[in-house]
Amino acid sequence: MARAESKAVHDNLNVDYVINYRFLDTSKSEAQKDLERLVQALARVGLQVTVRAGENCSLLIFVKAADGERFENEIYKQRVKDWLHGLRAAQPDRETKDVLNQAPATDAERHRVVHHLITTSVSDGGAGINVGSTDWKHVEAIFPLHDHSFNKYWMTKWATTTFLKAEDLDEIRDRFGEKVAFYFAFTQSYFTFLIFPAAFGFSAWVLLGGYSPVYAIVNSLWCITFVEYWKHQEIDLGIRWGVRGVSDIQEKRREFKYETQVKDPVTGESKEVFPAFKRLGRQALAIPFALLAILALGTIIVTCFSIEIFISEVYTGPFKNVLVYLPTILLTTFVPTMSTFLTQIATKINDYENYETAEGYKTALTAKIFILNFITSYLGIFLTAFIYVPFAGPLVPYLDVFHVTARPFAQNEKQLKVPKPGAFSINPNRLKNQVIYFAITAQVVNFFLETVVPYVKRKGTKKYQSMKAERAAGKGGTFDAALNDHAEESEFLTRCRSEVDLPDYDVTDDLREMVVQFGYLALFSVVWPLVPVCYFVNNWIELRSDAFKICLETRRPTPFRSDGIGPWLDSLSFLTWVGSLTSAAIVYLFSNGGSGPDGSPATIKGWALLLTMFFSEHIYLIVRLAVGAALSKLDSPGMNKERAERYLVRKRYLQEQFGDNAMELPPRSTEKITRESLEDDARASSLGTATPASRFWSRQRGWEESVQIGESLIDKMTAIDNKKTQ
Amino acid sequence: MARAESKAVHDNLNVDYVINYRFLDTSKSEAQKDLERLVQALARVGLQVTVRAGENCSLLIFVKAADGERFENEIYKQRVKDWLHGLRAAQPDRETKDVLNQAPATDAERHRVVHHLITTSVSDGGAGINVGSTDWKHVEAIFPLHDHSFNKYWMTKWATTTFLKAEDLDEIRDRFGEKVAFYFAFTQSYFTFLIFPAAFGFSAWVLLGGYSPVYAIVNSLWCITFVEYWKHQEIDLGIRWGVRGVSDIQEKRREFKYETQVKDPVTGESKEVFPAFKRLGRQALAIPFALLAILALGTIIVTCFSIEIFISEVYTGPFKNVLVYLPTILLTTFVPTMSTFLTQIATKINDYENYETAEGYKTALTAKIFILNFITSYLGIFLTAFIYVPFAGPLVPYLDVFHVTARPFAQNEKQLKVPKPGAFSINPNRLKNQVIYFAITAQVVNFFLETVVPYVKRKGTKKYQSMKAERAAGKGGTFDAALNDHAEESEFLTRCRSEVDLPDYDVTDDLREMVVQFGYLALFSVVWPLVPVCYFVNNWIELRSDAFKICLETRRPTPFRSDGIGPWLDSLSFLTWVGSLTSAAIVYLFSNGGSGPDGSPATIKGWALLLTMFFSEHIYLIVRLAVGAALSKLDSPGMNKERAERYLVRKRYLQEQFGDNAMELPPRSTEKITRESLEDDARASSLGTATPASRFWSRQRGWEESVQIGESLIDKMTAIDNKKTQ
Repeated sequence: MARAESKAVHDNLNVDYVINYRFLDTSKSEAQKDLERLVQALARVGLQVTVRAGENCSLLIFVKAADGERFENEIYKQRVKDWLHGLRAAQPDRETKDVLNQAPATDAERHRVVHHLITTSVSDGGAGINVGSTDWKHVEAIFPLHDHSFNKYWMTKWATTTFLKAEDLDEIRDRFGEKVAFYFAFTQSYFTFLIFPAAFGFSAWVLLGGYSPVYAIVNSLWCITFVEYWKHQEIDLGIRWGVRGVSDIQEKRREFKYETQVKDPVTGESKEVFPAFKRLGRQALAIPFALLAILALGTIIVTCFSIEIFISEVYTGPFKNVLVYLPTILLTTFVPTMSTFLTQIATKINDYENYETAEGYKTALTAKIFILNFITSYLGIFLTAFIYVPFAGPLVPYLDVFHVTARPFAQNEKQLKVPKPGAFSINPNRLKNQVIYFAITAQVVNFFLETVVPYVKRKGTKKYQSMKAERAAGKGGTFDAALNDHAEESEFLTRCRSEVDLPDYDVTDDLREMVVQFGYLALFSVVWPLVPVCYFVNNWIELRSDAFKICLETRRPTPFRSDGIGPWLDSLSFLTWVGSLTSAAIVYLFSNGGSGPDGSPATIKGWALLLTMFFSEHIYLIVRLAVGAALSKLDSPGMNKERAERYLVRKRYLQEQFGDNAMELPPRSTEKITRESLEDDARASSLGTATPASRFWSRQRGWEESVQIGESLIDKMTAIDNKKTQ
Repeated sequence: MARAESKAVHDNLNVDYVINYRFLDTSKSEAQKDLERLVQALARVGLQVTVRAGENCSLLIFVKAADGERFENEIYKQRVKDWLHGLRAAQPDRETKDVLNQAPATDAERHRVVHHLITTSVSDGGAGINVGSTDWKHVEAIFPLHDHSFNKYWMTKWATTTFLKAEDLDEIRDRFGEKVAFYFAFTQSYFTFLIFPAAFGFSAWVLLGGYSPVYAIVNSLWCITFVEYWKHQEIDLGIRWGVRGVSDIQEKRREFKYETQVKDPVTGESKEVFPAFKRLGRQALAIPFALLAILALGTIIVTCFSIEIFISEVYTGPFKNVLVYLPTILLTTFVPTMSTFLTQIATKINDYENYETAEGYKTALTAKIFILNFITSYLGIFLTAFIYVPFAGPLVPYLDVFHVTARPFAQNEKQLKVPKPGAFSINPNRLKNQVIYFAITAQVVNFFLETVVPYVKRKGTKKYQSMKAERAAGKGGTFDAALNDHAEESEFLTRCRSEVDLPDYDVTDDLREMVVQFGYLALFSVVWPLVPVCYFVNNWIELRSDAFKICLETRRPTPFRSDGIGPWLDSLSFLTWVGSLTSAAIVYLFSNGGSGPDGSPATIKGWALLLTMFFSEHIYLIVRLAVGAALSKLDSPGMNKERAERYLVRKRYLQEQFGDNAMELPPRSTEKITRESLEDDARASSLGTATPASRFWSRQRGWEESVQIGESLIDKMTAIDNKKTQ
């Protein structure tokens, strides 16, 4: 690792962070004034600055921690804060140098502290510079530079190994911070766990076919085990990386608007308060929002779904082969548009809820995004499984409203004629085809959209820009930053300029994708048991393509800390729960009737369906409890280590302060104990002035006298006892 | 409070603890040897001892903390330990005296520390004396003495106030410790919360009658709110009393048997280990145990239930009025017997599970006891509601096996003739009568069994004993401890001897009773909405009679700590959950059919019943989530205080170590900045030997140069920009 580190420093010329300062649409003097303010703010917190030209009216401001004590002190201070917050068991040594010698700062820690210095508010000892803040409207990006030699090493290593080890994750954590590392740890655990359902699913596919209750039970058990295991693993990794409980350290959101200022009775400081019940009222907006989302997305999905059924199963005219794609086109056009629109509304509502902490804001937003994703991802299959199959017979006749979609192509009315109730035959493969689509096609499309398309796009843009620049240079029109570069720095600065152009990496998107995938597995894989096989293959690629994406397609992420995958864990639990209901229902609905000649729902008994779901759900809940209890007994190296460390800290402290226990008998009383001294009365006179209590306690002097008197009492009692028994 | 305290000390002659040493069935020499060992062990940990005669071959060993520094140090040490375990935010002052002056030890703290010294193992700095340990088989009881003046004050105060305040609970905490105080706090909260359902239940009874869906919904909501409120309250009180997290401090069970000794890699100490998976295997015994319990208790309950139906609704012969009580007699004889037997088995299984900590042991045992209580308390009503009413028609004909119970009294076979299927008419009031029985009769009976009977019994025993003693004294046969007492101490010692005879107080029994009561409310109160009214009245008495019981009927409890009502909280949640199912089912079953002419279940639709339950349960789960979230927003004085304290501690520490942040600009570079110095090349030659990085950073010297170069770059760029736009 030392190799990679020194190489990185060499490659990046000691630059810790780059600030992209863009002054388009501003007057020259304002741009210059703001620049001075910016550089001063950075210098004030002990950061060294050097400025180079950027592209398109921008400057690159390179920042590094001025060497020496001040930065070391800052790292040390952060560690002390961690200790005070309970993240570290042992108090860091008083000697700063010793601390950093014992545990040198990783790339991630160094970046985090520099980022902290740049972004934290002035009152908390930072420069207060943030992207998007009104004070610093020219600051367009703040990011660290990629460590290209590490990136190369990372991609090569991962491309050639199948199962990642804890050390591989440690490397990511040391470079990109815990938040990104947790994503990879989660995906890796999920990938490894998929081996079992992939193997079992393949066997089930060969031996049992779809809709097998055995597969449903095993799959549900697997889902429970995986989620509970990951809970356990999250804690363990959190301790391994020293971030357990970091989510409780609440950082104030800059955007938080307080309503009143209250003086805290204990600390005496004034606190900014926003009434919790007012927020609760605003949070209630989530309910109409969820209804709106269901209505808006539901309408689109139901409409496209109905058109599809009409065209594929009612329409008999020409162009059927082409028209069949119409609803898919409509769906892929309107759903993302509506989704984006709803996400904007969700963000607005979330802003309005006015959270005090970044953590609270993120959690609430994640919940809202999860609702949207749940609808867009699963509603289509829900419709097929629980509306189309049981009720298609009575409902299809109403589809004649969709005449309009196919009328231009129909040769006669007969081709558009919907069947009479009872005459319609349900397509038994519709559900399976849909699930297969989400297991294979959607994943492939997604891979292209996420990895290949941006890569190609970026290459294209670059080419286009260089062409444009050449043309402009030919006309002598534009300022070419590269021409002003010092020859020696040219290559480095070109690289920096291209990194400025990259988008930021958002780990939430990748996590969301994995959670949605897990949802398909939990909810619908009983339809087609090869689903886990597909996901197993997909996730091997996913892990590598995400690494590729971080290295080449995005800026290097700022190493934020976190102690897990956050609210997504709840989403996983929730999906497993819903899975216990849907799997049971699907098995009941399809295991006999679905594959019948016309899929007639006549044999479906309402009470039997509900009873199946009822039992499935409650067995799920009990099993989850049991598996959770069993896994909590698992030996966790992290937890054991932490427990032992905390124990040692306490023990050392107690020993230092109290030493070992004195466990000696009190000295024998110097007065000689004679037979008379056992008589209370002899001593009573000398006790005349004392209180009853002191007389009570001094009737026996020292423990030896108490023993003697006790023995004599035993003597007396046993004597009488013996007399009685004689 | 100071008044009560000094009086207590006076009354009890400074005695902290009493150890009852009984040497029946032992040789005299062994009794004497063991006594010496006992007294020495106590003296070794700094406790002063004095011995008096007890009754029936026993000695009373009075223990007090030898005054002075050693005991104060011990209290101080316990507080430091609490701080190290995170129970206290601030580190106690280094000066022991100051600490005890600032926050003097309460009675409870003093007792707890003395108890700790007596019972903790020798290796942990105690005397290692425990009741029931094989080392100390003569030690029959270890208990503190009642503070009679406080008891009197307490009973008088409570008898005259209706709503207890937090300060009243603080008093209990200061005397009897947190565990007992939490019981009273819980019962008090429950009592206060009952006002609403009592009032609403009364209105519902007048306006809506039984089986009202409105009542069911309101009652369920109330149950959720109460349980979630109590969770919140538990945390708040835990912080108020400084015990939050105390249940995580795991004290090792003496009975724990380890299998292997493992050397801890971090601490280097050897650890006693029992494999968790072996324990898990043993815990699996809980499943056959639960089945056995259901089978055993179920058989008894079903049998008695069937006999009752047979006699009350089939049998028409003479003595019917008397015979009707037969099943009740059978029930009250066999169920407690079987319960006791099963509790013994449960304890055996629990012992076998070999828990490492007292907390773990207690939790597991509580769960088992809860299962037993659930069956004995609710199975009868379940049978009536869900078996008798829907299925009595087809099932009653099979009751003829119970001929035998009434045959001796029947005059002819016709009186024993079971009706033909379809001819039997269901008694619609059976369910209501059963619920009324549990709401009123059972509570009254319980009150008598718990409070009045022991009181009368004790009075009787005392009288009998004194008569016996007088007779024996007449014959000069037995050793009368009282005759040997010093006149001055006589009254005190008599009191101590009578306290020895009392049983220990077990708060678990009282808690269990409350939880079971809550269960009736959550599960079945929809049948008869006056249930909460009865419980409201009952719990006013219960709170006072429990105070009475602790003061007069039991030994003074050792003040154990706890941070809540422990596993019973889960039981409450569970009961509320089950309540959402039973209430919905009862409402559906009875709101139309139950009060019909023959209660025919023909109108009951399976799917409708299940759908009702399904919705009820899931609405319950969502509401619980929402209420929990809303209540967590409630302002908690305890939590606010703790947060503020922890913040202050951190702030003070950071300020001490780091002082305020230096936020000054670095000094201006001394070298005068000329136009030339902005030219890199001029300086490059002097940098020839440096690395590329150092050259990169030293091309601009100091922040001012960076600003100047930046400004000149802005100049250039905007110049070109302007040219372009012209």
